[in-house]
Amino acid sequence: MGDPAGIGPEIIVKALCRATVWKMCRPIVIGSHPIMEQTAQRLGVPSQVVLVHDFHKLANGPSFRPGRMPVFDPSVQPLKHIPQGRPSALAGEVSAEYIRTAVRLVQSGGANGLVTAPINKKAMYLAGYAYPGHTEFLASLTRTKKVGMMILGGPLKILFATTHVAMCDLSRAITGRCVSQAIRLAHQGLTQLFHIAHPRIGVAGLNPHAGDNGVFGQEEQRVIAPAIRRAQASGISCTGPYPADTLFGKAVRGAYDGVVAMYHDQGLVALKTVAFGHCVNLTVGLPIIRTSVDHGTAYDIVGQGTADPSSLIEALTLAARLTTQRAN
Amino acid sequence: MGDPAGIGPEIIVKALCRATVWKMCRPIVIGSHPIMEQTAQRLGVPSQVVLVHDFHKLANGPSFRPGRMPVFDPSVQPLKHIPQGRPSALAGEVSAEYIRTAVRLVQSGGANGLVTAPINKKAMYLAGYAYPGHTEFLASLTRTKKVGMMILGGPLKILFATTHVAMCDLSRAITGRCVSQAIRLAHQGLTQLFHIAHPRIGVAGLNPHAGDNGVFGQEEQRVIAPAIRRAQASGISCTGPYPADTLFGKAVRGAYDGVVAMYHDQGLVALKTVAFGHCVNLTVGLPIIRTSVDHGTAYDIVGQGTADPSSLIEALTLAARLTTQRAN
Repeated sequence: MGDPAGIGPEIIVKALCRATVWKMCRPIVIGSHPIMEQTAQRLGVPSQVVLVHDFHKLANGPSFRPGRMPVFDPSVQPLKHIPQGRPSALAGEVSAEYIRTAVRLVQSGGANGLVTAPINKKAMYLAGYAYPGHTEFLASLTRTKKVGMMILGGPLKILFATTHVAMCDLSRAITGRCVSQAIRLAHQGLTQLFHIAHPRIGVAGLNPHAGDNGVFGQEEQRVIAPAIRRAQASGISCTGPYPADTLFGKAVRGAYDGVVAMYHDQGLVALKTVAFGHCVNLTVGLPIIRTSVDHGTAYDIVGQGTADPSSLIEALTLAARLTTQRAN
Repeated sequence: MGDPAGIGPEIIVKALCRATVWKMCRPIVIGSHPIMEQTAQRLGVPSQVVLVHDFHKLANGPSFRPGRMPVFDPSVQPLKHIPQGRPSALAGEVSAEYIRTAVRLVQSGGANGLVTAPINKKAMYLAGYAYPGHTEFLASLTRTKKVGMMILGGPLKILFATTHVAMCDLSRAITGRCVSQAIRLAHQGLTQLFHIAHPRIGVAGLNPHAGDNGVFGQEEQRVIAPAIRRAQASGISCTGPYPADTLFGKAVRGAYDGVVAMYHDQGLVALKTVAFGHCVNLTVGLPIIRTSVDHGTAYDIVGQGTADPSSLIEALTLAARLTTQRAN
């Protein structure tokens, strides 16, 4: 459910009303049963919110059908009211509880994959959790060391060498280590999750024209090219560093299975230009399949009924596709 | 014609064979007549390359019809041979001569607009010209002070605050002056060339999430927002700074008439993702209409017959459209 004070409950209700979702998977909401009921009522949705007590019994039971929304509520005292549209310690605490429960559910075989609605960093901090986001929390819960976020949109699958770095600090943040790790995770995600035997990975440069042989910056020659060579030596089919504009233009047209971007906007401008509102996050490196929406809790629009479930539907679609492929 | 040692002659011959081009305009090539003939022959094109002596007489004459390629050759000694695929002082000198002639032609009313094939910076330097590109040379020839390049691709029209700057120098390069000038030129281009009375201009931030209120960088608050407020005070409908990924995603969907990008890849990743191979450059601020291909001389593929005329055709299309609109 993510943060119950955010748009999570609303987009879940909207997504689970779609018949297409039920054709792909059997969804179970881990979250507050009363809040799901209130949200469905407020949105005027005819679906019945069903409280599930034992999700292992449920797996092949009659609860999974369109028109019903199975909810497993892990709270000892079900959360009935929460201050909407703002961060609170309570929202952070139950967000964490939902995630812990969901991970146990997937790891015990009760579910095949995890799709997360947005949590709020501030609410998590108020509840005493110091993780910057879901990914780090999930890595800790599953005892995984090297994880990364692949963002998918349209034909693009992108891993990032850096995340939220100010441009004035970017040059220093681009290290051989982070470029190498992004290439390895891209390869791991494409082979293990998408079952592409020999994925072609294009690596972007940092500077305009990838530095034009050092004229507009040296990071390509000093850091990125050596990281690419090391990855090639370990058997990964990666090439570059390429000028970012050309690389993403070609990747959209199918020239690469995956792309490694050096920084946030380099990859996200490409993603949102081709797939605005339809991007989805996939965590690479975890022992479980986990996808996520590409937006936040959007506290400013909570309760207005205007939240767009597109990204959640994409996240459900991708998780369903990956679990099916893995089962085969 | 641009640099006769580059792919200019080849893409011109290919473009002028298209019937669609002749429906839009009456093209005249300013360049080497012998090299146009050789190129047409080499490509096996049935068109007749016609040497034009007086282009003012020509304007309504019978020379303009598909199957003919009118060429005005300004050289005293027509250029018959040139070392192909590499920069030379001779190529630079004739490139400059073609440009000077073309500007005179347009300024004297003999033509309505100028479309340029690529020149080579190194060849220009060898010939003694210190201009980094066409644009600066054209500004000097037309005695214009403030010019800028608008790049168009698909639904996007983008002006840039900076051009070829290494990422490690970018923060210092983003000044109030360059942001203000880019906004003014975007407004000027959209009103004067595209006749949009009150264009909506979206201005990108520099940092991820446009700095997220100063968390990932301060340039938005220190430099970009004040420049936007100054432009607004002067009557320009510009807003921002917006996170680049959201801004370009929305601009592609029609939310803005024009966008101001802070740096090269920010705008060009968006452009080439939506319009790879079909982008076109338009110079804003000149007293003449001038469009240009978005690629270079491509010395490495000269003579292979593989050069793609798409961008030249886009440049011809745009120039024809703008001159027609102006005439109305």
